[in-house]
Amino acid sequence: MRRCVTLLTDFGQADTYVGVLKGVLLSLNPDLQIVDLTHTIPPQAIALAGFHLAQAWPYFPADTIHIAVVDPGVGSARRAIAAQWINGCFIGPDNGLLTHVLQGGWPQQVVELTNPAYGHPAGRSATFHGRDVFAPAAAHLSLGVPLTDLGRPVDVSTLCQLPLAGYESIGNGWRGTVQQVDHFGNLVTTLPSSLLVQCHPASSWSLWAAGRRIPLGLTYSSVPPQALVAVVGSHGYWEIAVNQGHAQAMLQLGIGDPVELRPAP
Amino acid sequence: MRRCVTLLTDFGQADTYVGVLKGVLLSLNPDLQIVDLTHTIPPQAIALAGFHLAQAWPYFPADTIHIAVVDPGVGSARRAIAAQWINGCFIGPDNGLLTHVLQGGWPQQVVELTNPAYGHPAGRSATFHGRDVFAPAAAHLSLGVPLTDLGRPVDVSTLCQLPLAGYESIGNGWRGTVQQVDHFGNLVTTLPSSLLVQCHPASSWSLWAAGRRIPLGLTYSSVPPQALVAVVGSHGYWEIAVNQGHAQAMLQLGIGDPVELRPAP
Amino acid sequence: MRRCVTLLTDFGQADTYVGVLKGVLLSLNPDLQIVDLTHTIPPQAIALAGFHLAQAWPYFPADTIHIAVVDPGVGSARRAIAAQWINGCFIGPDNGLLTHVLQGGWPQQVVELTNPAYGHPAGRSATFHGRDVFAPAAAHLSLGVPLTDLGRPVDVSTLCQLPLAGYESIGNGWRGTVQQVDHFGNLVTTLPSSLLVQCHPASSWSLWAAGRRIPLGLTYSSVPPQALVAVVGSHGYWEIAVNQGHAQAMLQLGIGDPVELRPAP
Repeated sequence: MRRCVTLLTDFGQADTYVGVLKGVLLSLNPDLQIVDLTHTIPPQAIALAGFHLAQAWPYFPADTIHIAVVDPGVGSARRAIAAQWINGCFIGPDNGLLTHVLQGGWPQQVVELTNPAYGHPAGRSATFHGRDVFAPAAAHLSLGVPLTDLGRPVDVSTLCQLPLAGYESIGNGWRGTVQQVDHFGNLVTTLPSSLLVQCHPASSWSLWAAGRRIPLGLTYSSVPPQALVAVVGSHGYWEIAVNQGHAQAMLQLGIGDPVELRPAP
Repeated sequence: MRRCVTLLTDFGQADTYVGVLKGVLLSLNPDLQIVDLTHTIPPQAIALAGFHLAQAWPYFPADTIHIAVVDPGVGSARRAIAAQWINGCFIGPDNGLLTHVLQGGWPQQVVELTNPAYGHPAGRSATFHGRDVFAPAAAHLSLGVPLTDLGRPVDVSTLCQLPLAGYESIGNGWRGTVQQVDHFGNLVTTLPSSLLVQCHPASSWSLWAAGRRIPLGLTYSSVPPQALVAVVGSHGYWEIAVNQGHAQAMLQLGIGDPVELRPAP
Repeated sequence: MRRCVTLLTDFGQADTYVGVLKGVLLSLNPDLQIVDLTHTIPPQAIALAGFHLAQAWPYFPADTIHIAVVDPGVGSARRAIAAQWINGCFIGPDNGLLTHVLQGGWPQQVVELTNPAYGHPAGRSATFHGRDVFAPAAAHLSLGVPLTDLGRPVDVSTLCQLPLAGYESIGNGWRGTVQQVDHFGNLVTTLPSSLLVQCHPASSWSLWAAGRRIPLGLTYSSVPPQALVAVVGSHGYWEIAVNQGHAQAMLQLGIGDPVELRPAP
């Protein structure tokens, strides 16, 4: 069976940086199944990349190797690591990219990628560790090299974590924030579906954002076209959408703006 | 031989929705050959997606499974279907995406994807049937599950079709419309090449659009740089181009605007 | 082992032109490993495409077939060729796309793709040789057809080459130009790293551009956030960057603008 490697970067798609990374992978293991998660993370947006990584990860085969390279500190002292979970392996910089994945549990094993035998034969440049460190390490791992051969052990408690946007109880409900705006303009909040799993449009509960009461619904099309609705999105969080429209453009909200889930007063 | 699955969506490439879909496919069948047709269909533009699907379809192996997800009615009563032709299989919502493909003939067999055994194990969300219904059905089909096991039979005459932009005779020629503007700014019309297969720049026939007479040519470079020319495009329709330029920007025409193919008066 | 084919075009990703090309490839050889280098070359930007092709090429397996289609002269007299090097094969139009690759040495063998037996069965359209000529030739080559069967021999000295931006000695240093602006806004110059391999931030040498003195550094993060730094980029050229910022936006420089590498006066 072909081993799967995913790529998540801020490289964009106008240059050949992503292509070079794939060339390095395939030069070592021509049989890989390579999947692009996304390459349009805004430059250096580590937190957003971490959100996307954690969302996509569970849908891949358990032996998948996830390479994530959003790496403003490339060439500095930040560590290059490989971290093994039961359901996947991460390879990338230790700069907070794992923040969201770590909510699901600690990895079984982490190493710092210090063994030059498993880096690019031309050596380690100061500006492109995706090509020189992460891709070669992933390819060697896919060929059966043990994780522990890639470098020295890392104490999991020392892994870099970023502050995580969450939610809080406000007595008659919960207050969270917008944590992502997707391609459709849907506003994904930090409020998990578990807070209120049973909802009905007729319920007295609503989502409140930008001074507006937004009815809860089961589907985007449970409200008329161009009307606001809050649904449990595919990520498992409450999200604000406009049926056949663009909630971000309508409400002018962005990442970090507050939302509340509560009954009408 | 590796089975090919194509993906055509309006998901964009900034999020990981496409990646998740691929993860679901590869978790079930790690050996698939997955090809992106495009993911930048404007949100909910079903007719344009149908045009692209029909154009690309004939170039793929006959056992290819084409997943198309432009699905504003996700979670509503619209059916999720699989439809089998001799030269390919479609999986997606029954909302008109097949309009252009159906011009080439009826499918041999259509089923509604009602069998939960071939959906995502976590069940069917109300917002992401690409992940929960279409990708699992395609993967199971690629592994040899018979189409008829995926759900209940559908009468082909009940498939959703959208109104199709066509052309009409105008006595001394034909009138059609622009049906697509491509990446190069070329204006693809609804006038098929078969209307006038033999053309010469010196001919008295021309394409007329935006009040201008546009000479017919065999290649983009059959006219000087920055000049207008009408050629039979790779889709098999007459298209309006500017040699080394951008016809849409020059003529300010868009989808639905009229064009005529006729001799000079 | 699966044979690798790379694709570099100006087709964009909104249409299905790239998908059609892949369909043609996979219809002939379903087992190919297809890698997108980039499809967002600005329309007809042959020189930039040649730069990217030469940069990515060395990172791929030696038996890779590189298809490049930036082809404003499609349908005209420009030749369609296949050119074989020891470390890869090029297939595309003979219009200057190989300019940068040829700096590394002449190909062993070049043919013009004149044999219709290895084109698309439907024949050669006047507008889409990627589909009708280049993809079929690449697929047949990947299946073992000898290069010399694809058409008639071409004298390597007749290959089309474009003027190449270089650099010159200016007595106390070197003057070059910006040759590419990447996704991060980094300005890649034509000054190779070999001109000054040993540099230190404390050195008296600097890069000069837009009237400003830019210190040399080893990494992007060797200067404070939002400060300018010149580093040896992953391409092997000196490049101008802003730590966690966008050098192009800060300096308002573009392709062709002058840069100098020299000591302070």
